Amino acid sequence: MFDSGIGGLTVALSIRRLLPGEPIVYFGDLLHLPYGSKSEHAVVQFSLAACSFLRSLDIKLLVIACNTAASLAMVRIVQEVDLPVVGVIEPGARAACAVTKNRRVGVIGTPRTIESGSYPAAIKKIDPNIKVYQTPTPLLVPLIEEGWSYHPVLKTVLAEYLKGLVARSIDTIVLGCTHYPLIKKEVQESLHGAGNVRVVDSAETTAGETKKILEQMDMLLSAGIEDNLKVYLTDITTSFRAVAGRIMGSDDIDIEIVSSDYSKDGLRYSI
Amino acid sequence: MFDSGIGGLTVALSIRRLLPGEPIVYFGDLLHLPYGSKSEHAVVQFSLAACSFLRSLDIKLLVIACNTAASLAMVRIVQEVDLPVVGVIEPGARAACAVTKNRRVGVIGTPRTIESGSYPAAIKKIDPNIKVYQTPTPLLVPLIEEGWSYHPVLKTVLAEYLKGLVARSIDTIVLGCTHYPLIKKEVQESLHGAGNVRVVDSAETTAGETKKILEQMDMLLSAGIEDNLKVYLTDITTSFRAVAGRIMGSDDIDIEIVSSDYSKDGLRYSI
Repeated sequence: MFDSGIGGLTVALSIRRLLPGEPIVYFGDLLHLPYGSKSEHAVVQFSLAACSFLRSLDIKLLVIACNTAASLAMVRIVQEVDLPVVGVIEPGARAACAVTKNRRVGVIGTPRTIESGSYPAAIKKIDPNIKVYQTPTPLLVPLIEEGWSYHPVLKTVLAEYLKGLVARSIDTIVLGCTHYPLIKKEVQESLHGAGNVRVVDSAETTAGETKKILEQMDMLLSAGIEDNLKVYLTDITTSFRAVAGRIMGSDDIDIEIVSSDYSKDGLRYSI
Repeated sequence: MFDSGIGGLTVALSIRRLLPGEPIVYFGDLLHLPYGSKSEHAVVQFSLAACSFLRSLDIKLLVIACNTAASLAMVRIVQEVDLPVVGVIEPGARAACAVTKNRRVGVIGTPRTIESGSYPAAIKKIDPNIKVYQTPTPLLVPLIEEGWSYHPVLKTVLAEYLKGLVARSIDTIVLGCTHYPLIKKEVQESLHGAGNVRVVDSAETTAGETKKILEQMDMLLSAGIEDNLKVYLTDITTSFRAVAGRIMGSDDIDIEIVSSDYSKDGLRYSI
């Protein structure tokens, strides 16, 4: 699986819970993060380089654990990778369609994810009658990375971001960024006064989809090695270890920095 | 001049005010921003590529309009660029030493700028008896980029970040990031209860240093072209035009995207 940075570890955690023992190789493109505000061209190039690296590691399935990459680069990745590919968008969209009763769904995510319209498109493909309301929420990732999940400022920021969606009477909200499961409780609390709004967590839904595909293809490990997680990073950032430890519940994470090689064919990563 | 992104435009604005008519070429590495949380290795590579591109444009002086790049890459840049180089650190340090009365100076900046200890080192070189207290303030750039400079959340975040410095009875604070001049007034207000704390704006001090060097080397233009600013970017991000317009007071900015070429020699930019 890959992500622009650290948020995808919430997907790794959900997969580990659902499929304990399946070895996970995680690629975090910390050199180029964040993807969420950069151009489509840049995000596609970064994503293809990440997938190409993972493909070289003899994986059996690829998870795009980044909503921005899945929104902008899914089609190109599927074209170039000869493996089953799970993005975070479709599972989240399906879950939202399954839980909404009043057919009014909210989506929060990075500016590029929201701009891409990937969630409205995926949801309307399932049920064209569902109304989708979106809000870009660019401050949430910095707040989470700074460890301010419990700070009163987060409450104020969430109230500001979510008021437009609340005004639209949504009964379901999709956390359209893999960082956001870390503040799921805070989002729920912020929506408390707005009735019983259901929160769709793209990490959980993606883990479910991963399990389903591995079962369908008869590729589930019957007996794996517990807690087999290997993390490759393109750079190390100041907050990575602290936030990763908070997500995975342990500081004991096997991390290796890959080198970025520049060749005429473009960006390549190697161990 | 170059910056990881958009903050360096505050330096461009200060230089334009002080030296109207001097043509400015601005390079913003939006593809790789932010520098402030990334590794020293990464910041040095990005900075050298940016300087190499600017050098090819027949400039007469190079301004490192990014505190993180100046903190981590100044030595390497000076080695590799055969031109006068102005960083933001030394001018800011000199200004702080000139204005502090109680010899207690605070510095705020990105995690990497603070970690590097560049400001304490530069200040203590001038006056070893000055005490320097530092705080990394990683949420300020996202808040400014999101346009929340006037939002109550900024006040809360500033109070939280600055309380440790206030407790140290600083009488001077250095804005150690070129984004921060955009919230100079808010920083001043936040410190209002703490006596008469002077705010050192690295954009202004860097503009002053630039003028001094150009005068010394007899390279000041006697008659330049008004408002001659050319901006080269490595990518375009969602908020660039809006924030740039806010800084420069006009949306009419001449922007060109450079392509990132990957060669065996490393990262290269070209028009």
